[in-house]
Amino acid sequence: MRTKQEATLHAPEGQPTIEIVREFDAPVERVYRAHVDPELVQQWLGPRRLTMRMDHWDIRRGGSYRYTHVDTDGTEYGFWGAVHDARPNELITQTFGFDGAPDTPSLDKATFEDLGNGRTRLRVVSVVHDVAARDAFLSSGMEGGMNESYERLDELLEQQ
Amino acid sequence: MRTKQEATLHAPEGQPTIEIVREFDAPVERVYRAHVDPELVQQWLGPRRLTMRMDHWDIRRGGSYRYTHVDTDGTEYGFWGAVHDARPNELITQTFGFDGAPDTPSLDKATFEDLGNGRTRLRVVSVVHDVAARDAFLSSGMEGGMNESYERLDELLEQQ
Repeated sequence: MRTKQEATLHAPEGQPTIEIVREFDAPVERVYRAHVDPELVQQWLGPRRLTMRMDHWDIRRGGSYRYTHVDTDGTEYGFWGAVHDARPNELITQTFGFDGAPDTPSLDKATFEDLGNGRTRLRVVSVVHDVAARDAFLSSGMEGGMNESYERLDELLEQQ
Repeated sequence: MRTKQEATLHAPEGQPTIEIVREFDAPVERVYRAHVDPELVQQWLGPRRLTMRMDHWDIRRGGSYRYTHVDTDGTEYGFWGAVHDARPNELITQTFGFDGAPDTPSLDKATFEDLGNGRTRLRVVSVVHDVAARDAFLSSGMEGGMNESYERLDELLEQQ
């Protein structure tokens, strides 16, 4: 029986950063692949009620991505970014922007750590240009969306 | 006679950010163009003693760039990044990485403000993931390189 995983979210007082740490019961190669293969990403990124339309998803140094989350009432939420760096099974650094707040992007650094025994620790540190933008991000409900995303990712990793 | 411009650099205590503000005696369209046209960028970016080899320079949303500064003794310094957003004569948001410190990139937001009378204010806010990386950046001599770059940009803008 697999242990239920919990993400930890750390938002240091007065700093424009958010750190998320989450472990997965899957080897690092599969957790990394679930972040770079658009057909896999589409199966877990975002809350369950949203449909993800993948415009493009090209995770390599100098690549970029854009996708649209479509709500049950047809409302669309567009997200996009550019990839600073990607090292397989190790690191992805990319920007993250939302059409609804285009001037407050974040720079997100995701590191993938092989814990042995087929387990992986994912650590994502996001930074924005000021603490107000960080706080707006926190109060947008991102934590609930993140937990639901990672539960979906657990399910995807179990199936593979 | 043109007034000599000075850049102001602001590095707030305990924050992982650096803000640079500099005015130019040129219309916003020309200052912006000097940032996106690789043949122009090559003429001003970096200290005078370095030669700039432009690998690619594609400043648009989802674009990327890479260049190498070559010192008089042949030493090479490689820089690269990805472009989150670019709105002509208004804003460029891009990542900035150095081969010598590949895991501490910054996210740089440059805004171009039309001051009227053919003058432009450039404001660049850079953010990194922690204050230690910001301080390392400050002590790397970036301020001298920046001032020399902007003097060269003044000269380029006078010629055009």
